[in-house]
Amino acid sequence: MARVALDLLGGDGAPEVVADAVGILTREDVDIDLVLVGPPDLAEALLAARGIHRGRLEVCAAHDVVPMDARPLDALRADASRAHPRMSVMVAAMAVRDGKADAWVSVGHTGASVTAAALVLGRIAGMTRPALAVVLPGLEGPVVLVDAGASLDASPEALAQFAVAGWGYARGLGVQRPQVGLLNIGHEPGKGDELRLRAFAELSARLPLMGIDFVGNVEGSDVARGAAAQVIVTDGFTGNVLLKGIEGAVDWAAQRMGTAYGDLGPARAVVRAVGTGDFAGGMLLGVNGITVVGHGAGNAAQICACVRLAARSVDAGTLDLTREAVSALGAEESGPPPAVERVGP
Amino acid sequence: MARVALDLLGGDGAPEVVADAVGILTREDVDIDLVLVGPPDLAEALLAARGIHRGRLEVCAAHDVVPMDARPLDALRADASRAHPRMSVMVAAMAVRDGKADAWVSVGHTGASVTAAALVLGRIAGMTRPALAVVLPGLEGPVVLVDAGASLDASPEALAQFAVAGWGYARGLGVQRPQVGLLNIGHEPGKGDELRLRAFAELSARLPLMGIDFVGNVEGSDVARGAAAQVIVTDGFTGNVLLKGIEGAVDWAAQRMGTAYGDLGPARAVVRAVGTGDFAGGMLLGVNGITVVGHGAGNAAQICACVRLAARSVDAGTLDLTREAVSALGAEESGPPPAVERVGP
Repeated sequence: MARVALDLLGGDGAPEVVADAVGILTREDVDIDLVLVGPPDLAEALLAARGIHRGRLEVCAAHDVVPMDARPLDALRADASRAHPRMSVMVAAMAVRDGKADAWVSVGHTGASVTAAALVLGRIAGMTRPALAVVLPGLEGPVVLVDAGASLDASPEALAQFAVAGWGYARGLGVQRPQVGLLNIGHEPGKGDELRLRAFAELSARLPLMGIDFVGNVEGSDVARGAAAQVIVTDGFTGNVLLKGIEGAVDWAAQRMGTAYGDLGPARAVVRAVGTGDFAGGMLLGVNGITVVGHGAGNAAQICACVRLAARSVDAGTLDLTREAVSALGAEESGPPPAVERVGP
Repeated sequence: MARVALDLLGGDGAPEVVADAVGILTREDVDIDLVLVGPPDLAEALLAARGIHRGRLEVCAAHDVVPMDARPLDALRADASRAHPRMSVMVAAMAVRDGKADAWVSVGHTGASVTAAALVLGRIAGMTRPALAVVLPGLEGPVVLVDAGASLDASPEALAQFAVAGWGYARGLGVQRPQVGLLNIGHEPGKGDELRLRAFAELSARLPLMGIDFVGNVEGSDVARGAAAQVIVTDGFTGNVLLKGIEGAVDWAAQRMGTAYGDLGPARAVVRAVGTGDFAGGMLLGVNGITVVGHGAGNAAQICACVRLAARSVDAGTLDLTREAVSALGAEESGPPPAVERVGP
């Protein structure tokens, strides 16, 4: 029985859309215990309005969100210094830290969620920076793209950590022997910019020692195809641009192809099906607690998908799998100093 | 009457597929004069086998291609030192330099084409590095993505040059007042990695002085949407990954959506229509001559599209438009030293 803390205040449609998701989950997912994080009075009213049975629902009090124009680190550090932090992402991460929940989910500001996770939960040993892993439904099978936007200006050593953490995550998702590829501009060795040349050397040297199959360079098109590798590693800037580029291209295709068939319905259904699968949420790797970050514009079905991904990852022991993988790498690691230090509230 | 030199030896299906394209062009594009670059005997035999009338066709003798395992710069420098260079990309670029053609096209190895163009034609004043501009058919109108892979490890100053050159190119394509956006991970100022933060400052400071509308940051999804900006600027690594990611996503969508409709035909027709539009070829900006680089796996229809793009750019005065734009920027430019020096054969 996985217990998942859900941020009631995060996301464009919060709190209504999040409450809608709670309604669906309490009906359809009896094996998930929800911990709702938000103002208790508001939660009470939203649940009552939807006729949601409070039986298995706990509420953790939180009152604020990180303002869009604030630097998340400043806002959350200030919040962490309070006796009782008020920001919903802080309280949700604390629920995991304090054992009230096994995982937490927010569809609010990504930067705030990443920062809250790093501050409250701390990093796992051997991982100097967090990375967001997103599962894409490749034609030949699922592909874990990591980092999809948590860490910018990554070093070759950080890319090796992302690779190993992504490999552990893919195993938790049920991929038996995930192959790891480095996102690059061509398949041949010797391709790419300075970061890729150094990362290729790093991955080639270290992954095979850990029994991980490094297949070398892969290209942007391999993400949607899914044949070349099941884990594709890149820096957070490139990963974020690529992920959004793919989203835009699929929207484009739904419009153009739907028009070609004279009926937009089935094309839009394909887009919708993807958005409510594992793709709905990114798993934040490298922090000491299962953290799923969803799309800010997510609807109720997508928020449910994020919660299910979190619950499934609890059951699969994803955190232990990534922790073991990274600590094996980290034992010999001497990377740059941590980007965010852990602070207690 | 645009004269376009076409590399007979470049591309996965060369020389047969290129000869097929010549057949189509001589029938359908009477306003394009072709200069075929390859072994004269081979050209003769291929044309005869297709019953192609030699009337408007000139042949420039070339015999070799750059081997896939060679470094293009080494191979082409060696070739340039010959009294009569043998590599088809060298000879095609020389045809433009020597006034035998107004533009050249190759669907061979991209790195070899970029290098040959830089070596033979030289860079335009104010442009320290070349950039590949690809036109994508955004939902709201065409989008020029620049750089799609010619220059890796670009500086903020180089991104400003790419922006201005891309702006000139977009005007040549008929976009009246192209808006320029910086590819980033969010729309707000202050987003992005080190390169993006510095490029944002550079573009904000310089583009408005030239009367160019800089709209700020755009995201990966804006490339396929086409509403935020008509020119989207990035480094060649990110641009190449994004372009291939979009290609893969559109293939993915054709497969999944075609299956949803129970008929792959119309979805594949959408993909094919895109591939035989302006999107078929990248325009190499920053060199003194119109150079179109096509997809190595291109079929005859795609090669025709590349030749038509080249011819249309000649007629539109694209080279003068980009040259003027970049020289206005370059007058105050003090960028890094040139990456490739010009050599004469």
